[in-house]
Amino acid sequence: MLKAKIYVQLKANVLDPQGKAVTNSLHNLGYTDVIETRISKYIEMSFRNDNREKVSQEVEKICQDLLANPNTETYHYEIIAEE
Amino acid sequence: MLKAKIYVQLKANVLDPQGKAVTNSLHNLGYTDVIETRISKYIEMSFRNDNREKVSQEVEKICQDLLANPNTETYHYEIIAEE
Repeated sequence: MLKAKIYVQLKANVLDPQGKAVTNSLHNLGYTDVIETRISKYIEMSFRNDNREKVSQEVEKICQDLLANPNTETYHYEIIAEE
Repeated sequence: MLKAKIYVQLKANVLDPQGKAVTNSLHNLGYTDVIETRISKYIEMSFRNDNREKVSQEVEKICQDLLANPNTETYHYEIIAEE
């Protein structure tokens, strides 16, 4: 079995309202050293297939087709053997 | 400046309805090798402080106070120098 560790993040120039809200809350709680918070998705996906190349091709398509919005998000991933 | 890379994940025994929905969608799209999908939060937090120990203590408190639900989520993080 293989596992894909997928990160789907807002592009750097895209405003992150959720992150801004967390930063403001933290300032109100006294954590004034926090400059910026960026919140994104981390997805672990298990495959019953052991063919690393095939799984990598599938993950690339899955990211494009389903997980990442090409207008506002970027994605990167790594494929590891499932423990 | 220092940056905290924080992962907030559902505990292994907690059902992930969002992950299940993605897995079902993938099966409908023909990606039948996908066994399981677990979706969690990945948070990058920048600090103007360079004191690694102080930032680590703050991140620990921030995770407990704000970011992670102790009943259903676990968290882990690493502190790196901001590029």
